[in-house]
Amino acid sequence: MANCLVAQSGGPTTVINASLAGVVKANQLNPIYDIVYGGLNGIEGILQERLYDLTKMSNLENRVLRQTPSSALGSCRYKLKRDDETDYRKLVEIMDKYDIEVMFYIGGNDSMDTVDALSQWAKKNNISKRFCGIPKTVDNDLMVTDHCPGFASAAKFVNNVVNSTWLDYNVYTRSEVFILETMGRDAGWLAGSSVVSGHVDLLVLPEEDFDKEVFLAQVKKCMDTKGKCYIVVSEGAHFADGSYLSAGKAANDGFGHAVLGGAGNALKEMIIEAGIAPRAKVQDLSTAQRCANYLQSEVDVTEAFELGMSAHMRSANPSYTGQVVGVVRKPGEEYDVEFIAGPAENFANHVKNVPAEWIKPNYEGLTEEAYEYFTPLIQGEPKLIMDGAVPATLKPYHMK
Amino acid sequence: MANCLVAQSGGPTTVINASLAGVVKANQLNPIYDIVYGGLNGIEGILQERLYDLTKMSNLENRVLRQTPSSALGSCRYKLKRDDETDYRKLVEIMDKYDIEVMFYIGGNDSMDTVDALSQWAKKNNISKRFCGIPKTVDNDLMVTDHCPGFASAAKFVNNVVNSTWLDYNVYTRSEVFILETMGRDAGWLAGSSVVSGHVDLLVLPEEDFDKEVFLAQVKKCMDTKGKCYIVVSEGAHFADGSYLSAGKAANDGFGHAVLGGAGNALKEMIIEAGIAPRAKVQDLSTAQRCANYLQSEVDVTEAFELGMSAHMRSANPSYTGQVVGVVRKPGEEYDVEFIAGPAENFANHVKNVPAEWIKPNYEGLTEEAYEYFTPLIQGEPKLIMDGAVPATLKPYHMK
Repeated sequence: MANCLVAQSGGPTTVINASLAGVVKANQLNPIYDIVYGGLNGIEGILQERLYDLTKMSNLENRVLRQTPSSALGSCRYKLKRDDETDYRKLVEIMDKYDIEVMFYIGGNDSMDTVDALSQWAKKNNISKRFCGIPKTVDNDLMVTDHCPGFASAAKFVNNVVNSTWLDYNVYTRSEVFILETMGRDAGWLAGSSVVSGHVDLLVLPEEDFDKEVFLAQVKKCMDTKGKCYIVVSEGAHFADGSYLSAGKAANDGFGHAVLGGAGNALKEMIIEAGIAPRAKVQDLSTAQRCANYLQSEVDVTEAFELGMSAHMRSANPSYTGQVVGVVRKPGEEYDVEFIAGPAENFANHVKNVPAEWIKPNYEGLTEEAYEYFTPLIQGEPKLIMDGAVPATLKPYHMK
Repeated sequence: MANCLVAQSGGPTTVINASLAGVVKANQLNPIYDIVYGGLNGIEGILQERLYDLTKMSNLENRVLRQTPSSALGSCRYKLKRDDETDYRKLVEIMDKYDIEVMFYIGGNDSMDTVDALSQWAKKNNISKRFCGIPKTVDNDLMVTDHCPGFASAAKFVNNVVNSTWLDYNVYTRSEVFILETMGRDAGWLAGSSVVSGHVDLLVLPEEDFDKEVFLAQVKKCMDTKGKCYIVVSEGAHFADGSYLSAGKAANDGFGHAVLGGAGNALKEMIIEAGIAPRAKVQDLSTAQRCANYLQSEVDVTEAFELGMSAHMRSANPSYTGQVVGVVRKPGEEYDVEFIAGPAENFANHVKNVPAEWIKPNYEGLTEEAYEYFTPLIQGEPKLIMDGAVPATLKPYHMK
């Protein structure tokens, strides 16, 4: 029997290791591969033959791995070039050396593109190696799949922070604006998910060109009505010319002063300069939103694990290559999904945006369809194994 | 029988409502007051006769109140002037009108000073009204008490964020610094608590004047050794002349450019300007750290509730006034506390700092004594009543 290889790439999430745990567990339930190698630091480390044997992982280690945030195998930003075969050949050489037939790659848009490129190239050159994708991204912007593992836990974190900071923000009678900034460079899913909290007055997404005049009029209306305004903005919010809000000064007044600290601070500056509110507080969720293992969504961590298993199980079919697993929502009241797989090229290289028809005009949030989409994804809390005051985590394999 | 009044003041915490719940519960167990009034928005609202009857709160409401972050009665920044009796007389007038004999004030340094001032003044003027303090502050800087309710939950949040962001930060092989900024204007307890995580390379506290040269040399040493450096800084970190790091530019180069965004960004700028690392990521915990009810410390929320009860129970003694409740740690291996009360003037108006002998030189963290102090405080997670994806919370009384 041959071996398999699993690796992680791109920005980590809270549940990317659950998919890794799923691949390992599936091979224990049905050992179609002799060895499950973990490739350290993605393609970059694999090309340096940095492999770690995961085959005999204990059940406890597997459970702790599922609640360990970030990429336990390490990650990389290394992108294989489609027009240069050097790395492809090197990779196949290493796979040959370790008798690896199948590689599972857990990642986002770029990684699914890599799965596509490698499998196409292998087919064209009659190389029997196979490449299978498992999606992850807090950005939720992959095509085909209803949603991406990692997104729902980040969305659960966002909703918890909105809920608690909204209560904190309202204790004083003074006039003040609160601005929460989330991740989301190209798509506004994470910022959009905050509407579930019911506390968001204004929502600024990258799906629309930012109109300063309309926005400020809305802030003013909100402040005039209730003396408070809770705003959520996506880091990728941008003007009509494509420049980010965080570069707003440069784009608008020509002085070349970059506004430090992103979209939230840019909005704060606009609001205060316009004299709409004397004070504004900015909370930038930054890294914490994609690794908050103390707030995993049970739906998310379970699906991430199951997608890892699904990819492994499907790979028993010798023609399974260049495919990515995903979920499609079943119709009906109760939330449930069907597990699917499809060509990597269909998942990658396009950004799935928040549908235009869900976005209310004038930054007033999202429609009922959005609530129905987001709400079931963030439900439930897995029972965590604690290590003192924090959830137990594994020491990352790439740091051992 | 007479009535009592309870109010909250200053910056909210994750467990300040647990102390409120404790006062209400104690009066249900032993109804020494006919009515427990909640004063809305602290002294400010009480002077406007904004009172809310809490006497018959249901058990479920009491339980949900304990897990509702922020001040459910609202807060204020209004400070009674010691040299002007107008507000004092107005307050007593209102207490007379509602037959209120005792006022419980839940707050930090300023609020305990208010308790002291009011009780002194009442005694001096032969007014029978009594004023009792219940401490809270994420800053943990009150004297007498071993620690302050609210601090431990914030410290638990800090440790969880450090633990997860440290894992996230380490996925890439690239050279980069990570900087986490916590609250703590005058005292470094919250930043200091992060050492429990075991992941902090360098710690910058307001207890010491910041020495840029020594600090940068330490960052360089750390980067040279392992290519990574995880730094925690207190917002109140300052230079020898007292100016905050966040105003570092102004203090150092005389150009008057305030560095936006606090101590973390100031350190980032220094490190990059010095060419020690090409990249640095800053996570400012901002408001989220003092209201993360999904990460309450069980020790903290229990003690906060019990301190509320303790204050109520002690007030059965007609000579109990001008006193603040607190906890003193019992000697021994197992964490346990004794409940105490003492004159408000001893608690307030001094800042309790992290002891100098706990602070290692050259930003290298804290000694073993600090670990022993912090570790038991952040243990345990209360069983939360959930409302969908977030802990259930009460609608604040001041917003009803």
